[in-house]
Amino acid sequence: MKCIESIKEFDGYLNRYTHHSSSCNCQMTFSVYLPPQASKQKVPTLYWLSGLTCTDDNARVKAGIQRDASRLGLAIVFPDTSPRGDQVADANRYDLGQGAGFYLNATQLPWSAHYQMYDYIVDELPQLLEQNLPLIPNAKSISGHSMGGHGALICALKNPQAYRSVSAFSPICYPSECEWGKTAFQHYLGEDQTQWDPYDATRLIQNKSRTTHILIDQGSNDEFLMANQLLPEQFKDACDRAGQPLTLRIQDGYDHSYHFVASFITAHLEHHVAFLSKTP
Amino acid sequence: MKCIESIKEFDGYLNRYTHHSSSCNCQMTFSVYLPPQASKQKVPTLYWLSGLTCTDDNARVKAGIQRDASRLGLAIVFPDTSPRGDQVADANRYDLGQGAGFYLNATQLPWSAHYQMYDYIVDELPQLLEQNLPLIPNAKSISGHSMGGHGALICALKNPQAYRSVSAFSPICYPSECEWGKTAFQHYLGEDQTQWDPYDATRLIQNKSRTTHILIDQGSNDEFLMANQLLPEQFKDACDRAGQPLTLRIQDGYDHSYHFVASFITAHLEHHVAFLSKTP
Repeated sequence: MKCIESIKEFDGYLNRYTHHSSSCNCQMTFSVYLPPQASKQKVPTLYWLSGLTCTDDNARVKAGIQRDASRLGLAIVFPDTSPRGDQVADANRYDLGQGAGFYLNATQLPWSAHYQMYDYIVDELPQLLEQNLPLIPNAKSISGHSMGGHGALICALKNPQAYRSVSAFSPICYPSECEWGKTAFQHYLGEDQTQWDPYDATRLIQNKSRTTHILIDQGSNDEFLMANQLLPEQFKDACDRAGQPLTLRIQDGYDHSYHFVASFITAHLEHHVAFLSKTP
Repeated sequence: MKCIESIKEFDGYLNRYTHHSSSCNCQMTFSVYLPPQASKQKVPTLYWLSGLTCTDDNARVKAGIQRDASRLGLAIVFPDTSPRGDQVADANRYDLGQGAGFYLNATQLPWSAHYQMYDYIVDELPQLLEQNLPLIPNAKSISGHSMGGHGALICALKNPQAYRSVSAFSPICYPSECEWGKTAFQHYLGEDQTQWDPYDATRLIQNKSRTTHILIDQGSNDEFLMANQLLPEQFKDACDRAGQPLTLRIQDGYDHSYHFVASFITAHLEHHVAFLSKTP
């Protein structure tokens, strides 16, 4: 991995890197915020997965996350949301193709050649970063927004030993039952819906996946909530039936934007630090 | 003024408005963050002036200012950086014309028809906002970044009774002596340099303008500092000779970006609140 930018912020460093991803078979860009504590010791890590249309840059500019990360001594990893490049399949819409990888391993042509974001996020990137940066091995948690909130939920549910904790803002909770999810899953995973279940947070809960206490914040004035793209209540029902601990907070009057994320990011980082600071 | 967007953030509202500006003789857009306290009582106001290429949106997304404004009960006004529109003169460069109004009243054609940002910021906008929003009359302070830091300094120095306090990030301190400033002043104000003095912070200090204790933060790794566009030491020399109170902090390793602004915004808001909370 090659560092292509380093910006001092809150006494730590916001770095940007490129590398060749073996999972996605293309050059990938990501950012990492290293808090000031990382200059002296290894620190725990929060992976932040962004939503549709985003790159690694959106959250690092808009979420206000570095301020708390500096105070709490937490590294933040901002991956891209899909493979990228002229040779990578794309679609002429915002919710499919580049910028819309959905954090899954595609099985259908032409997507399967590069869209292996699940392996990239869960395996390749943590291995790379723990080898190259001052991060405590296996002390990692995961969070994200919208499509990235869905990504955080499935990564944690499928790998309860790998992530100490999980949270999400305005996540797509039940992709098999919403337009965004159905579009993506049909193209990336094919028409056989049994192949969708391993990448659907609500179905994972129904099929007995479990993780640590989940924290979700959702704005009541979110246009995509009202358009039935997110379906948090269905996810909550599944968790309640299954005994999966979940705090779902409906925040009155907030929308789907990063202004909402910034408003509640402190509580999420403190949620993660509570788990990361325990000896596993 | 017409509200065209309202986003809940940190329990307050980030609103965007349009109106016809009589000073600039065109339609203008600006944003205001109203903290939660403003739903019950009038609050003091900080005007934030942005830098070259910005609109009202940059700082409200990148500076992390709403978090502290919510806590401290401060309204933040984000004006645009120039007049806008097809009928407004422009130049094919980022440091002149639209997005580069320099917060002055232009006297030269074609600029003088619309580029009256000084009157807009100092007179028109505060009058409009104090009539239409829950803002305490005359309880206002001013800050900004780069070209907007210069704007904040000259507004406060020329109107010491109108602003309770002033601060700046990486300001253009001595525009008559840097390339950005010389380009703008030649076009907007003409070749006669005596006409530049009323819009040059360092010259204003030399010519006996005074204001309350000024706070400036400047990154040591700022590419525009190194390119002699900012000249904070010349401003400090002028303040020291004149007895103008100034705290100039050179922050080691920080650059010119909003990541720098976010890192130190809390100290600036607390600087302003200390002045705004005193009975005048």
